[in-house]
Amino acid sequence: MKQFYCGQLDKTFVGREITLFGWVHSRRDHGGVIFIDLRDREGIVQVVFQPEDKSLFEKAEKLRNEFVIKVVGYVRERPLGTENKKIYTGEIEVIVKELEILNSCSILPFDISEYTDVSEELRLKYRYLDIRRDAVYKVLKLRSDLLSITRNFFVKNGFLEIETPMLTKSTPEGARDFLVPSRLNKGTFYALPQSPQLFKQILMVGGIDKYFQVVRCFRDEDLRADRQPEFTQIDFEMSFVEQQDVMSITENLLCDIFEYVTGKRIEIPFLRMDYEEAISKYGTDKPDLRYGLEIVNVTSIFLDTQFKVFRSIIDNKGSINVIVIPEGYIFSRQQIDDYISFVQSCGGNGLAWMKYKENKFESNIVKFFSELELNSLKEKLKLVGNEIIFFSAGEHRKSCELLGLVRQRLAKELGLIKDKNEYKFLWIINFPLFEYSDEEKKIVSVHHPFTMPNYKQLDILETKPLEVKSCAYDIVLNGVELGGGSIRIHDLQLQKKIFSLLKISSEDIENRFGFLLDALSFGAPPHGGLAIGFDRMVAILTGNESIRDVISFPKTQKGICMLSGAPSEVDKKQLIELGLMFKDKK
Amino acid sequence: MKQFYCGQLDKTFVGREITLFGWVHSRRDHGGVIFIDLRDREGIVQVVFQPEDKSLFEKAEKLRNEFVIKVVGYVRERPLGTENKKIYTGEIEVIVKELEILNSCSILPFDISEYTDVSEELRLKYRYLDIRRDAVYKVLKLRSDLLSITRNFFVKNGFLEIETPMLTKSTPEGARDFLVPSRLNKGTFYALPQSPQLFKQILMVGGIDKYFQVVRCFRDEDLRADRQPEFTQIDFEMSFVEQQDVMSITENLLCDIFEYVTGKRIEIPFLRMDYEEAISKYGTDKPDLRYGLEIVNVTSIFLDTQFKVFRSIIDNKGSINVIVIPEGYIFSRQQIDDYISFVQSCGGNGLAWMKYKENKFESNIVKFFSELELNSLKEKLKLVGNEIIFFSAGEHRKSCELLGLVRQRLAKELGLIKDKNEYKFLWIINFPLFEYSDEEKKIVSVHHPFTMPNYKQLDILETKPLEVKSCAYDIVLNGVELGGGSIRIHDLQLQKKIFSLLKISSEDIENRFGFLLDALSFGAPPHGGLAIGFDRMVAILTGNESIRDVISFPKTQKGICMLSGAPSEVDKKQLIELGLMFKDKK
Repeated sequence: MKQFYCGQLDKTFVGREITLFGWVHSRRDHGGVIFIDLRDREGIVQVVFQPEDKSLFEKAEKLRNEFVIKVVGYVRERPLGTENKKIYTGEIEVIVKELEILNSCSILPFDISEYTDVSEELRLKYRYLDIRRDAVYKVLKLRSDLLSITRNFFVKNGFLEIETPMLTKSTPEGARDFLVPSRLNKGTFYALPQSPQLFKQILMVGGIDKYFQVVRCFRDEDLRADRQPEFTQIDFEMSFVEQQDVMSITENLLCDIFEYVTGKRIEIPFLRMDYEEAISKYGTDKPDLRYGLEIVNVTSIFLDTQFKVFRSIIDNKGSINVIVIPEGYIFSRQQIDDYISFVQSCGGNGLAWMKYKENKFESNIVKFFSELELNSLKEKLKLVGNEIIFFSAGEHRKSCELLGLVRQRLAKELGLIKDKNEYKFLWIINFPLFEYSDEEKKIVSVHHPFTMPNYKQLDILETKPLEVKSCAYDIVLNGVELGGGSIRIHDLQLQKKIFSLLKISSEDIENRFGFLLDALSFGAPPHGGLAIGFDRMVAILTGNESIRDVISFPKTQKGICMLSGAPSEVDKKQLIELGLMFKDKK
Repeated sequence: MKQFYCGQLDKTFVGREITLFGWVHSRRDHGGVIFIDLRDREGIVQVVFQPEDKSLFEKAEKLRNEFVIKVVGYVRERPLGTENKKIYTGEIEVIVKELEILNSCSILPFDISEYTDVSEELRLKYRYLDIRRDAVYKVLKLRSDLLSITRNFFVKNGFLEIETPMLTKSTPEGARDFLVPSRLNKGTFYALPQSPQLFKQILMVGGIDKYFQVVRCFRDEDLRADRQPEFTQIDFEMSFVEQQDVMSITENLLCDIFEYVTGKRIEIPFLRMDYEEAISKYGTDKPDLRYGLEIVNVTSIFLDTQFKVFRSIIDNKGSINVIVIPEGYIFSRQQIDDYISFVQSCGGNGLAWMKYKENKFESNIVKFFSELELNSLKEKLKLVGNEIIFFSAGEHRKSCELLGLVRQRLAKELGLIKDKNEYKFLWIINFPLFEYSDEEKKIVSVHHPFTMPNYKQLDILETKPLEVKSCAYDIVLNGVELGGGSIRIHDLQLQKKIFSLLKISSEDIENRFGFLLDALSFGAPPHGGLAIGFDRMVAILTGNESIRDVISFPKTQKGICMLSGAPSEVDKKQLIELGLMFKDKK
């Protein structure tokens, strides 16, 4: 067995005989000597074959890239002037006296060290080659470290890791379940869990008090954007807690994780922001606080306006919102038009705009406004000159959301995110409990139906359900929702009332949640918890755009594993055993 | 949030005001005072309601078993003579000044503290009540601790935890796969992994060097005996290692685990035993070494025997094996007959037997043997008197296996396992690589087709495949196979040869293992690993018979989750989306 990694050797090893295992990263023949960069997961070391030992040298001449070898040799300092300061082992080299070729290598589909032109599909097909790259290895190593830090954090804080079932019953998270046909109970299916939500609540009813798991979850979604059919989440639940307690544990966990990666302690507690404020100020419930460009509601200035567009929107209870871009005066007509088209492509009507310089507003709409309105605007927005102002008018939330998208685009295009290692956390709280679904023509849960309503609003639950806030909280980092949780309902009657408000039929309730209701009737403690998207967090911490980059064997957007070829057709025999057939295959 | 658990209070808390949360474990009204045993996961403390505060007392009178309450009170020493030495908190009690009833409890289906008469099905249906029992909690806690110890062991030793896919391709472990129909790729299926075998090998080809995972695995078996459709295994793999290295890491891991549980360091290295020796001496490849009763081959004594039964068996290359039971002379005829019937129920022809006392053999078969044979027997078996000898004659392996079963039964009935906390580990090595399958009419792998053959026998691989041993090793504890592993094949040509010997069609090879063969062609390092059945290990360590007792939400033998009712029927819509239908339902 190996005692040292190639990448770990330094001057302290000089003079020692050593055995190394690894891959031929590159080979240079120079002055009758063969230099091999020998690579293992920890790095590269230079090994040298000198011509004196003929049979050894002949063997070395056969070496090609990615051959697997074992060498025995002694470590010496590199001759003066040949050191390589770029790598850790650059001061030494290993003079080989024994070589064993453990395996050869076919012609590579792509070069290990220069891969940038290779398509993602090819990299995933040959994932074992891809993983040999230092960058990929480092991600997997960090991921492994964070798993360990996460688990040890929870253990240290008295949480029990409990493995909940993977073969379970459909959970009501809103997304589609992956189903697993049961052979022993023909005609029925298990579902792979979208989250261990109900099981962790059951564990609380079981008195476990503090549960955690780093757990695989599954959603059969159309794989738009950056989704994977299986993903990992940090999942925990606690009894006898308030919202504040769950948030505090989460903050401490993230402190440990981020300190490990960045070396710096993040500041806690994180900022708390009401859902409504986030929408009004940033047009989203996951605002990126690394830059400004906050949305300002200027409706009050235009209450008496003669400008017809604003007039009619205000009359229809809409609002006028703006973003001020300092130094935006230089925006060209083309740039402005691009933003207008962008807003239209997002479903808006467009943007109005004004520039401001030397005490003067410029725009084709300036003429519609009174001096008073313009002065109020200037004051409210604290204009100093050289700005451009984007106006979005309409139904308040939609108007803000459109400006929120404009804000994100501005940040990108103006390069407002200067420090890639800046991490701005915040909590979004006071979400609405319900929202109205145009599709389903009824109210639906904003989070899930087990979310506790704001205790103080229980009296208006039935009369004004859409006004009720919930005890849910989302954790947001740099504009990304990292996770979320809530205090859960532990009261049987309240849970039943919520189901009834959601118009879930008694039969459905019994079928899907009967066991939860049972559990609530037998001494359920107050409890709450949270889940964090582990893949997403690792992606942010490693500066990767996609969660595919931080998963060992990710699937493509079509849900295919390029390496193994899964999913694949199966033997007819297997279908027969399950009593299944395909509809159009007969 | 709670600061202390009920079960943690002791004299050091006396005089302090404290807030507790928990369940009413029991209530006693005595001398106008109400005593509640308040329980949380850490134990029980006595809380006292005195009659002076009337409204408080009235509230306390409403308390019933398993109500969830919050109390504020101060800790005091129990009055002299009322201490309860049986529990940790028995020297103190909490005088309550505030009570909040957080939840009530319906009439319980079974009592939390006395459950022995309750059926397993009922316990699993109300698993949240079952888990409140101290014994169940302790198992889950220990399991959680062992997960942590296991992972920290591997991290400490330079292993990376890498999460392999759950939605993957059929693996060739022999058992049936659970299938997951793909909606995005209609007509195809993912398979849930029976083990991460191929992925961990791929990770070695990727240069990860040391991988581990505590991972869920799935087998769709008929759930005879003590199987679960999903189970947890400790899984690891290492590059550039020999058998010895993997075994040594395993021993060190088990040391850490067993020391945590028992407080004692187990002795390493463990005993190594050849497969053939295990079969010949114990009739099984997982012998329980906590007791003797070794099988002895006495064939050589009877080579010239006139006893027809033995004669014909020896002529057919069979063997005669015995177990000697010291002090077995007292076995009644009924007892002996029971063992004979037992052997017949196991597929054997029966047992011959002889008793030995005062230099004399007794049995209806003694008359068939010569003085020489009997004397040789006496000498070989070192008989001292008062023994009974059971003979099993026939094909060698079968004869030994039958005696192996007799041996196990004897150990149980004679109470030979005295110390429940004795742990006898051993390694079984030198397994045959192949065995002949009567069912499939061809040779099949004893372990799996990626197992490295004994390096020294590669020349007879094709000519005498059944004589070739493998580099596989099983770890056995107290007669239970705890896990197993092997050095894997890293040579492409050798792997192809094995597939060809196994008569796997080229198409099958390409479909099922094409990506592995690809990987082997691109610089695969020598590697090997092991997997340990985590549930089984926890069951042994907690003295539980069944792995169901150590799984948070186990399924019944029919694969049903009594709690959630999974598996269940699903909406037609879901089947339509998958393009699936049931054969007999149309």
